[in-house]
Amino acid sequence: MRIGELSARTGVPVATIKYYVREGLLAGGERTGYNQVAYSEEHVRRIRLVRALVEVGALPIAKVREILDKAGDPERDTDSALGVVARAMDRTREVAEPEPDDLEEARAIAERHGWKIPPSEPRMKALADVIGTLRLLGLEALIERADDYARAAQIVAETDIELLASRADREEMLESMIVGTVLGDALFAALRRLAHTEVSGRRFTARREVPDEKSCN
Amino acid sequence: MRIGELSARTGVPVATIKYYVREGLLAGGERTGYNQVAYSEEHVRRIRLVRALVEVGALPIAKVREILDKAGDPERDTDSALGVVARAMDRTREVAEPEPDDLEEARAIAERHGWKIPPSEPRMKALADVIGTLRLLGLEALIERADDYARAAQIVAETDIELLASRADREEMLESMIVGTVLGDALFAALRRLAHTEVSGRRFTARREVPDEKSCN
Repeated sequence: MRIGELSARTGVPVATIKYYVREGLLAGGERTGYNQVAYSEEHVRRIRLVRALVEVGALPIAKVREILDKAGDPERDTDSALGVVARAMDRTREVAEPEPDDLEEARAIAERHGWKIPPSEPRMKALADVIGTLRLLGLEALIERADDYARAAQIVAETDIELLASRADREEMLESMIVGTVLGDALFAALRRLAHTEVSGRRFTARREVPDEKSCN
Repeated sequence: MRIGELSARTGVPVATIKYYVREGLLAGGERTGYNQVAYSEEHVRRIRLVRALVEVGALPIAKVREILDKAGDPERDTDSALGVVARAMDRTREVAEPEPDDLEEARAIAERHGWKIPPSEPRMKALADVIGTLRLLGLEALIERADDYARAAQIVAETDIELLASRADREEMLESMIVGTVLGDALFAALRRLAHTEVSGRRFTARREVPDEKSCN
């Protein structure tokens, strides 16, 4: 297809497609004649992947290129590529060295859930960083209830890894992990907000239907 | 305290603090003498709140101002303020009109979980939007497993609303909701990644310890 059709298929302006090619996020099309370049379904797929990372994942272009470069490196075996790409996706925000108390809290949560995580695991620091921010903002109550979050996270992670393992080949696994990481967060966030509507609606209605409830507390 | 101490306490540069004041995100300090302005604990708290929204929540400054303005509007009662602020926090990304199939899928998920959500609820469209993106990217497998995500989201939402309801006054409730919405997503994302490490580690070790497993499948 021509670049105009590629643009129509993906909803991405021609100028942006050209920018992606210049930035190395997208291979150029195949030159088929004077001033004629053909693009394939592979390009459609790749542009959609880039858009998901940029729009839904809010990742900067340089980070998207790093992730796609690592995923496309033919020197690595699948397990190693999955690990390297996962690490690249983790480092989207600089995490300062966490406070010892926050790290301790993070480790305690993992331990209570039977998670065997190496102490040096950077993801433990990322969790400690969130805990530190919650503490700074006076939301200790949420830290105390982090076990509910961890229980929910485990349900989701079991599903994620099961889906990943069911993928047929390396390329499918990598793309599934990249998309699943970013869109899984978005899917959960959307469902969490919908569940807020449900749960707070239930509470609010209960409060209105039982006007004496307040005096009972 | 002087602006230098405020900067040291919050880790935010003086120039950024002045920018927040100019942008209306932060009240100016109290003028206590010629060229002397005093800031309070209230300023420390507010700056930390702004940082959480900007850094962890990745919200643009204009959106942060909108949220804080709505939260601070004394004309609204608590329930109405909570609703208005929640809506403002939802609209961080433009959601196109979803495909009917995707909206149908979103409704079906809510229905299976017994969530009574009005059909016009914008959060349903936000969920349909994520479903549409998953479909575009060939991750139908995750849509099929969205019930696991919904189950996890309900666990978290029950905790969230319980914490919110336990807050003493209007200001605490609003701040708790603002911080909890943004940091709750971050907390879940950090725990989800840690759980990925645990679950994939378990699978990987099992695969190595039972070398015949592959041939059993």
